[in-house]
Amino acid sequence: MQALIERIRAEGINLGGGILKVDSLINHQLDPRLMAGMGESFAARFADTPIDRILTAEISGIAPALMTGIALDVPVVYARKKKPITMSGPVFLETAPSHTKGGETLLLVSAEFLRAGENVLIIDDFLATGKTLLALARIVVSAGANLVGVGVVVEKTFEGGRAALQAKYDAPIHALASITSMEGDTITVRGDQPRLL
Amino acid sequence: MQALIERIRAEGINLGGGILKVDSLINHQLDPRLMAGMGESFAARFADTPIDRILTAEISGIAPALMTGIALDVPVVYARKKKPITMSGPVFLETAPSHTKGGETLLLVSAEFLRAGENVLIIDDFLATGKTLLALARIVVSAGANLVGVGVVVEKTFEGGRAALQAKYDAPIHALASITSMEGDTITVRGDQPRLL
Repeated sequence: MQALIERIRAEGINLGGGILKVDSLINHQLDPRLMAGMGESFAARFADTPIDRILTAEISGIAPALMTGIALDVPVVYARKKKPITMSGPVFLETAPSHTKGGETLLLVSAEFLRAGENVLIIDDFLATGKTLLALARIVVSAGANLVGVGVVVEKTFEGGRAALQAKYDAPIHALASITSMEGDTITVRGDQPRLL
Repeated sequence: MQALIERIRAEGINLGGGILKVDSLINHQLDPRLMAGMGESFAARFADTPIDRILTAEISGIAPALMTGIALDVPVVYARKKKPITMSGPVFLETAPSHTKGGETLLLVSAEFLRAGENVLIIDDFLATGKTLLALARIVVSAGANLVGVGVVVEKTFEGGRAALQAKYDAPIHALASITSMEGDTITVRGDQPRLL
């Protein structure tokens, strides 16, 4: 997605240790037009896939998942990381190690919002090691639903997440922007030359 | 907003202790059309107000704030409740007691995404005691920005939040649905008769 790639080139910051700061686009501030474009871009990439529901994880997955839900006109459910007081009844529960916060992250989805036989598209902000996406995929399988695709806003291709997902699931994986290297202070977006910050 | 009121009547559950479960609409599952309607409804209610930016709080404020940002074509910033590893530089920090989770909640906004002189509309999912909205309003003031309005998806009119906000700020407050009573097992939406669940 060209507009996103250009914004990452202009505004992304390599904080070292494989941490990409895109707070101005995804993780703190949201640009409505860019976000709507992400939703349309995911919808176009999965246009031939039957999709009943989108699953994401709070917090930063909500915005791109919602915009994709709007583009495809299907409901979105976001996995909670803490049990809210309003969550009752059976839940699907998985854990994943957190990449940017440390520790283990819980992922909880009420059984009432993920049904057997549904075709589920997972959308999230980042694909790095794939641990969160693998946990979401396990929730889809636990529900007896079908994982039909995985869409991520930004993939870091050098952390192995795509291979980890492909080793377990057949679903196609689409990234709107792929970071192929974060050596030194640079950020290399696929097809791009290393950029000195 | 009639469509929202009808969905709350149909799907809202009174869990007791003033806790309204609307997980199927706002806090866990999102209905894209309903959510887009919320954004358009907020945009219509604040149509005569100059707005440069929308401020909300993660987690459940993100979806209605983003849809309002799309309807108004202005950027959205969501206050973080934990400092992400990507957050650097000066931040505006306030605390608010959490209504549904207990304890104190931090609210963090990077100074780079909230500027002096901006006209800021606060959007959130609930107005109950107003503690979260008051903390967001304090952040707006700390930034030297102007609080020009407050929009909430659901107001519980019996918890005093509107009066607490009006005691400190002149900004107009709009609620898309107002719950006027949650006696026993019932939920009374403004203009509605008590509903037995």
